[in-house]
Amino acid sequence: MKTLVLVAHPHLADSSSQQFLKESLPATGIDWEWLDGQQAIDVDREQTKLRQADRVILQFPLYWFAAPASLKQWEDTVLTRKFVYGDHRYPLADKELGVVVTTGMPGKAFQRGGAEGITLDAALAPLAAVTQRAKMTWLPTLAIHQFGYLNESEKLQLVIRYQRYLTQAQPDSLTSRQTWFAERLPGMIDRLPADQQAKGKLIASVFEQKSADLDQLADTLALIKEQSDD
Amino acid sequence: MKTLVLVAHPHLADSSSQQFLKESLPATGIDWEWLDGQQAIDVDREQTKLRQADRVILQFPLYWFAAPASLKQWEDTVLTRKFVYGDHRYPLADKELGVVVTTGMPGKAFQRGGAEGITLDAALAPLAAVTQRAKMTWLPTLAIHQFGYLNESEKLQLVIRYQRYLTQAQPDSLTSRQTWFAERLPGMIDRLPADQQAKGKLIASVFEQKSADLDQLADTLALIKEQSDD
Repeated sequence: MKTLVLVAHPHLADSSSQQFLKESLPATGIDWEWLDGQQAIDVDREQTKLRQADRVILQFPLYWFAAPASLKQWEDTVLTRKFVYGDHRYPLADKELGVVVTTGMPGKAFQRGGAEGITLDAALAPLAAVTQRAKMTWLPTLAIHQFGYLNESEKLQLVIRYQRYLTQAQPDSLTSRQTWFAERLPGMIDRLPADQQAKGKLIASVFEQKSADLDQLADTLALIKEQSDD
Repeated sequence: MKTLVLVAHPHLADSSSQQFLKESLPATGIDWEWLDGQQAIDVDREQTKLRQADRVILQFPLYWFAAPASLKQWEDTVLTRKFVYGDHRYPLADKELGVVVTTGMPGKAFQRGGAEGITLDAALAPLAAVTQRAKMTWLPTLAIHQFGYLNESEKLQLVIRYQRYLTQAQPDSLTSRQTWFAERLPGMIDRLPADQQAKGKLIASVFEQKSADLDQLADTLALIKEQSDD
């Protein structure tokens, strides 16, 4: 899977959350691009990147209930009508589009009666409408609230959530997760420091055992279902 | 009333609808500003303008279900947290905010099942949330659909709708409209060409007669209500 990550942030170097996400990127399969870092938008190049991607991630802090201006500039420039739906051709059809949004408020602020007075889904509705117009598939948003308050354990969990959001098959089912971990765990363990290798291998063997148990359970369930269908 | 009109459009001179609206501006009380025409945003100047305005109009074509990037850039730059709600002070509180939006699609496209797949209110929800955050009053949006297809009569009506949207007291009740026309009609008639002055004066006298009739009706209604309350 090829994932294109478009980051909109006017001061990327000053953003601890964006720097964290950058360091958390999966090792392969990612085309990462910082929109504000470009002098001018190369429309052909951007359109080519979009054509080549299987999944497009729009990543930004929520400014005034929307993406920063640089993402809108990119939309207004790159997503020409002709490109997105001209002549009834939809080059982006069936590609997935996901949003990774950071906010300075807790999640509960984004509900009726909450401090922000609008849900994230409502704030992102214009982007969802673009997705719909392009016949792309909208992924449930990955919201990162108050990154600065996360503890180390939460940050480590975020690395995995983020990597899965960028590369795991959708929908986010148990099977999709299991497959993703089965593919990634060996590489993750290989990259562990020498003194943690043993622990890593223990985790891998537990994971394998649990996966085998799950497969067996699934087989049993299928058998029961078959019999009750008779 | 002081009205600040902020126009976001990357190619203003090429836009027949924006040129038309510019020519339709009321003669007085309007501070008109083209956001894309500025080299850099002067934050202090913009904030001063906002403080001085009674009504703020955001005017733009709908690009990808939102305002063009220049308006978002203006928001991200001018509407600092400190300015809008810092220290629990709300300098924009109770000012009115209205959106004048032009679209290339008919109004019916912006409903469930319509071609655009999103209502204008849903597309403008992020701006409405800004308005709410600033404790401003959101005005019902003035949508101009498919300007190029309007005939002369519809265009003349648009001039009045637009002028009223910029300067008429809210809510848009019969009384507000009547007051607005009573104030403006004499000036409008004065500016008519000589050969249309007689027609203009006839309209003015009919308007006065109808207004007097309405006032009398209102008095009668009030009397009836008073008696039935006894």
